[in-house]
Amino acid sequence: MTTPPREFTTSEGARRIAWAARGMPVLTAVAERLAQDGPLRGLRIGIALVLEPKTANLAYALAGAGAEVTVYGTASAHAALVADALRASGIDVHIDPSGDGGFDVEVAREFLHSRPQILIDDGAALIRLAHAEFPEVIAGLIGAAEETTSGVRPLRQMAQEGALKIPVVAVNDARMKYLFDNVYGTGQSCVMALLDLTNLQLAGRTVVVVGYGWVGMGVARHAAALGARVVVSELDPIKALRAHYDGYRVAALADVAPEAEVVFAATGIAGAITPDHVHLLRDGAILCTAGGGAFELPMDHLRTVGTPRTVRNAVVEYALPSEKHVLVVSDGECLNCVDGEGNPIEVMDLSLSLQALAVQHIALHFRDEPAGVTSIPVELEETVARIRLAREGATVETLTPELAAAMRAW
Amino acid sequence: MTTPPREFTTSEGARRIAWAARGMPVLTAVAERLAQDGPLRGLRIGIALVLEPKTANLAYALAGAGAEVTVYGTASAHAALVADALRASGIDVHIDPSGDGGFDVEVAREFLHSRPQILIDDGAALIRLAHAEFPEVIAGLIGAAEETTSGVRPLRQMAQEGALKIPVVAVNDARMKYLFDNVYGTGQSCVMALLDLTNLQLAGRTVVVVGYGWVGMGVARHAAALGARVVVSELDPIKALRAHYDGYRVAALADVAPEAEVVFAATGIAGAITPDHVHLLRDGAILCTAGGGAFELPMDHLRTVGTPRTVRNAVVEYALPSEKHVLVVSDGECLNCVDGEGNPIEVMDLSLSLQALAVQHIALHFRDEPAGVTSIPVELEETVARIRLAREGATVETLTPELAAAMRAW
Amino acid sequence: MTTPPREFTTSEGARRIAWAARGMPVLTAVAERLAQDGPLRGLRIGIALVLEPKTANLAYALAGAGAEVTVYGTASAHAALVADALRASGIDVHIDPSGDGGFDVEVAREFLHSRPQILIDDGAALIRLAHAEFPEVIAGLIGAAEETTSGVRPLRQMAQEGALKIPVVAVNDARMKYLFDNVYGTGQSCVMALLDLTNLQLAGRTVVVVGYGWVGMGVARHAAALGARVVVSELDPIKALRAHYDGYRVAALADVAPEAEVVFAATGIAGAITPDHVHLLRDGAILCTAGGGAFELPMDHLRTVGTPRTVRNAVVEYALPSEKHVLVVSDGECLNCVDGEGNPIEVMDLSLSLQALAVQHIALHFRDEPAGVTSIPVELEETVARIRLAREGATVETLTPELAAAMRAW
Amino acid sequence: MTTPPREFTTSEGARRIAWAARGMPVLTAVAERLAQDGPLRGLRIGIALVLEPKTANLAYALAGAGAEVTVYGTASAHAALVADALRASGIDVHIDPSGDGGFDVEVAREFLHSRPQILIDDGAALIRLAHAEFPEVIAGLIGAAEETTSGVRPLRQMAQEGALKIPVVAVNDARMKYLFDNVYGTGQSCVMALLDLTNLQLAGRTVVVVGYGWVGMGVARHAAALGARVVVSELDPIKALRAHYDGYRVAALADVAPEAEVVFAATGIAGAITPDHVHLLRDGAILCTAGGGAFELPMDHLRTVGTPRTVRNAVVEYALPSEKHVLVVSDGECLNCVDGEGNPIEVMDLSLSLQALAVQHIALHFRDEPAGVTSIPVELEETVARIRLAREGATVETLTPELAAAMRAW
Repeated sequence: MTTPPREFTTSEGARRIAWAARGMPVLTAVAERLAQDGPLRGLRIGIALVLEPKTANLAYALAGAGAEVTVYGTASAHAALVADALRASGIDVHIDPSGDGGFDVEVAREFLHSRPQILIDDGAALIRLAHAEFPEVIAGLIGAAEETTSGVRPLRQMAQEGALKIPVVAVNDARMKYLFDNVYGTGQSCVMALLDLTNLQLAGRTVVVVGYGWVGMGVARHAAALGARVVVSELDPIKALRAHYDGYRVAALADVAPEAEVVFAATGIAGAITPDHVHLLRDGAILCTAGGGAFELPMDHLRTVGTPRTVRNAVVEYALPSEKHVLVVSDGECLNCVDGEGNPIEVMDLSLSLQALAVQHIALHFRDEPAGVTSIPVELEETVARIRLAREGATVETLTPELAAAMRAW
Repeated sequence: MTTPPREFTTSEGARRIAWAARGMPVLTAVAERLAQDGPLRGLRIGIALVLEPKTANLAYALAGAGAEVTVYGTASAHAALVADALRASGIDVHIDPSGDGGFDVEVAREFLHSRPQILIDDGAALIRLAHAEFPEVIAGLIGAAEETTSGVRPLRQMAQEGALKIPVVAVNDARMKYLFDNVYGTGQSCVMALLDLTNLQLAGRTVVVVGYGWVGMGVARHAAALGARVVVSELDPIKALRAHYDGYRVAALADVAPEAEVVFAATGIAGAITPDHVHLLRDGAILCTAGGGAFELPMDHLRTVGTPRTVRNAVVEYALPSEKHVLVVSDGECLNCVDGEGNPIEVMDLSLSLQALAVQHIALHFRDEPAGVTSIPVELEETVARIRLAREGATVETLTPELAAAMRAW
Repeated sequence: MTTPPREFTTSEGARRIAWAARGMPVLTAVAERLAQDGPLRGLRIGIALVLEPKTANLAYALAGAGAEVTVYGTASAHAALVADALRASGIDVHIDPSGDGGFDVEVAREFLHSRPQILIDDGAALIRLAHAEFPEVIAGLIGAAEETTSGVRPLRQMAQEGALKIPVVAVNDARMKYLFDNVYGTGQSCVMALLDLTNLQLAGRTVVVVGYGWVGMGVARHAAALGARVVVSELDPIKALRAHYDGYRVAALADVAPEAEVVFAATGIAGAITPDHVHLLRDGAILCTAGGGAFELPMDHLRTVGTPRTVRNAVVEYALPSEKHVLVVSDGECLNCVDGEGNPIEVMDLSLSLQALAVQHIALHFRDEPAGVTSIPVELEETVARIRLAREGATVETLTPELAAAMRAW
Repeated sequence: MTTPPREFTTSEGARRIAWAARGMPVLTAVAERLAQDGPLRGLRIGIALVLEPKTANLAYALAGAGAEVTVYGTASAHAALVADALRASGIDVHIDPSGDGGFDVEVAREFLHSRPQILIDDGAALIRLAHAEFPEVIAGLIGAAEETTSGVRPLRQMAQEGALKIPVVAVNDARMKYLFDNVYGTGQSCVMALLDLTNLQLAGRTVVVVGYGWVGMGVARHAAALGARVVVSELDPIKALRAHYDGYRVAALADVAPEAEVVFAATGIAGAITPDHVHLLRDGAILCTAGGGAFELPMDHLRTVGTPRTVRNAVVEYALPSEKHVLVVSDGECLNCVDGEGNPIEVMDLSLSLQALAVQHIALHFRDEPAGVTSIPVELEETVARIRLAREGATVETLTPELAAAMRAW
């Protein structure tokens, strides 16, 4: 890597990045290969991810492979520290100064002026902005990689409507992404962040998880593991029945709201929780978002009808006209990122290594790729899995000719 | 249903079938619709499933809808009792008299002489036999439905090689099947059957699960829930890493064999466990199969080099030349079916209702369907899920126009 | 052991006893010591336990140590087979021929005519009968050992009222008993027996556990592990709060009865479940007992007001005047013993080894012991634990002089 | 309460205390009773607990009941903020300014100069200091209450040696304490604190828990729930076997050290982990303490032979002469207190309410109590449990005359 701020720097941001790097053996290995093979040399790569120590290591890995890296950092608890460290290493960083976790269009525009040839996006915000305002960026893009469920959904919609102008790798669709990052990363760290931000515990609490996708499943599993009585709210009856079989009560949010002590929105869909839901909640219920963002909650309504009071760092209580109170954590933004340090290091090692390989794949194979949403080749996923398993001392079976034949036989 | 032996019969088989029917509200509801709508009237339908009380209820459901039903029953612990009850209700049953859980070609041929127009298969054994020997059956088949992972795999291989001559619905590929039947049905009941057949317990035991597909995942989850220290052996590095994240040790079978106290084969692949593996096992290790069959184990080798002794009902100990002993449960066949009562009733209610709807789908839409392997329409899956959730008193969210718009928006 | 029916006999009872012996390394080791040391030589020892393969091995162990063993066998699913095998080995067995799991006073009297000097009791039934009718047995008793919570409770009550005339070792009070046998033995095997007897499953079911002692805790833990939504009903608010923290809903039975799909009585107290409770249950609820016996349920009431129908082996449905139905498993007796094979082998290895050591302790130290209820010396518990851990390949820390000093320091 | 800094203050300490108070309904109820009944009026009470928002609420509760409260605060992450708020409310606070989590004798002496009549201690540090240096404090003490396992052990030792001069209530021995605070409080929050301080995760990690008492059990349970492969190291073979049955591998630390990725000391015993153990650890292993303190670890040795480097806030890496590295969290002090916010609020609500009732008990009944260690009356425990259950909407069974008779019957 170009300027890996490992041992010899002392800034807090650099120290955090170095600590994260210790827990990212896969990214380290992938970075070494990229540096040797050289497919990224001279390319302009834009990274638009939550800015924290792990994503900083991705920036270093790509820079170390010879790319010209520009970073757009969604504000988070640690964004400023990390941005300082990256800039000190010569990487161009654009970051929303307000620090409220939202998306700053002005800063995003500045970032796009760097005219990235490959774009790593989170929530498809930058891809959509480029389509809307920056035809020259679109024209110059070899391709993009999208990290999240919330981002892949609109991109597929755009592709279906013929509006998508570039080829995109849906990194989120890879098993190596969603089976790990969404379940054990976001799912776990959002539960942890809630406990950390409130000093409360979940044993015996009624926790409603809205949405039983991979993130919701992870939230439910970790909350239940900590003793919560989990209720799952779903639209898809098959997912709902799965939650039932997993031992959770299943109920529409309107039906369970009067008992809910904590509500996690894990849908990735705007307006999933409505003002009506909020007024059905029991007094003192806590609302937060896992994985997606404040758009899932009726924040405008709360701010209009409620009287806010900060009762603890990152926890705002809204007094409603009904004399009931609702507490919102991290202003409804994804709480592990905005007020925590994001996902655990080891799980981001997987996701970001996959991103690095997706970038390599785009660089090598997307010059003539038509616009559309494609998957990351399964071999790249397996590469990530194999490096990690080897690091863990785990061994996998070998596909012998006999087994291969048995699998082909009928 | 034609002759539902509910309250008024007294045979043990009929009593078991009636008991199962109580726990199958979805199939009951689907049966009522089929009887009303009439799409199966007069069709010859062949059912080739493990013959036990739940599958008997599928036969009644189809017969009650006006079909002419013929059953090929893989022998199981309860097959004879159930066959008697079905025959008493006027349903034609062909069953292997040896009762060893294997596949009897002679009996299967007799069954195919009934010239089914729709075939429900388990393991694709009958479909393959018909392709090999019964061109006239193939010619008359509107379509078939296949129940298992082990059966779908060779069918896809046949389709890929151009050898498949009929359209097949891969019921196993439905989430409503594998998320429930494989994980909570087979996974759970194989663990239970082992405990029941041996009177042992799993707390503190090293249990190796070979194959981390849906069945293996179910076996691992239930074994761990009962206190086992589970080790997972896998070929696919991504599944292996998932097992690692689920908290299990991951190791190739050869590496962990010396510690294994119980080995569950859950691969569906012939020869997955080799003679070499067996000789590496610790003295007294128990071998069994979950979901697939004895073909996964080196039974021929054991019978050749080992000296067998029945140490308990369904448990045979092989003394090996090395003076070590290996115990095999249910002769290596899927132990919950051969020596238990198969999967739990409620989960088979889902799978068999899906089968009934697959049959309806074939009858209504497959007259001109080209040969190949297709999925069951997701609406039919949702039908099953919705009926069951309603029965459980669970409510699901409604897709409001606002939500639908939000899901389409970008 | 005198006549261990290991390899050379072929009766089914002997085969089952031999199979159990394989899984009882601790009892085997204890039996060897007892045979060498000789403290039991010539003593008349009465064993009054559920008669199944594991308890048969205790009889062999004591007989092998030179005692004259007489067995009173509570009827169970396997009692007759086991009794045959014991008798074939020359051990005197008294067993209730009715086989209904109850206590047969006539047979118990015959057993007491053997005038045991040491008595191993289960539920204190024999000790109480001897106090009531057999003063000469009481006079000749060196001491007794009691196995269960249900038996220790009345014995303590007798001691408090001055009615107890002999010294009793409360084996049940030993951590080596209740932490294992009650939680992992009875708790697990009762849940298993229910699934096995009904072919149902627990995922998504509302299961009420009445009583959150060690057995109830075990039932709750295993039911939850299989996906049940567990509700705990308790009298003791501290135990109730523990259940709450363990993630279960806590409610009085009357409050939760309308939702209960399965009710496990795990109280050991007569009349814990009342007729009123039964009439509050939802239609089709299943009632059963874990650990205690039918005395916990209102069986007389059900038989008086309900119309019974056997819907499956060991499952009787009572049609109530209200047109609701209640199902009772194993006639309300402890279902794992009456219709299963009792607790798992490994856990009974612990409990029965402890019984053997309790007998040794009584023989060596109780000649002048005053009447009362005492504990088993912790060293004997540790002996059992150490043998088992060594068998499992587990190592424990050594109490170094430094650690011992640190533990004494202040 | 005297000056409850609820709504009208704005200092961060006061805000945190107010937030905690919301989650402490039991303490609030107990405080109201104490204020009404008046048994503490005019008494000098010394509180020596970890100084954080929950313990501050205990101080307010006692002050509100008319006592003259003095606080000795062990330094913690939040001690200074909380001390400011308490002082602003007129409560006398003594706090070690170094903030390193240790015990400052000078400050403790100052605190004892307040001559408390009732002392609430944590670790028995103040009780021991008073015995050693402050005979006049001892003379004036009505009694003391001790919070922890680590403190009760030396007090019992002192009592046994005749050195204890005052009556002490061992609050830690109450089920309402150890079943909740130790397992769900300390156990959970130490695991959480480790994840929070390192941004790592436990899925797939080998975590060794040294000591399987209530805290160790809680650590093991929560680590396993998060996917760790837990190994338990124990001295007591019975506890070790319990861990085995709970599904954990059991091994002496020396045997498992080469595989350990994280080691939690949960013994409460000085020197439990030795220099030899440290040198056996694998490179990069993380050492920390749950519940007890740095005295359990060989900190002196590490500081002597190792070269320290702070790699992240609260994480110091020691480079050993062997070229291996060991990481120590929170300087080996109990990490949830020193670098977190201590136990979750709800669980401290139970423990501190019990403390308040213990103080009431001492005030009412200990004027003539002889020196020694006694338990808190079970009725007081039940009071706490009942208030909490009622708050949770849980109902408990009623002891009917029939049930009471059944429990007395034999």
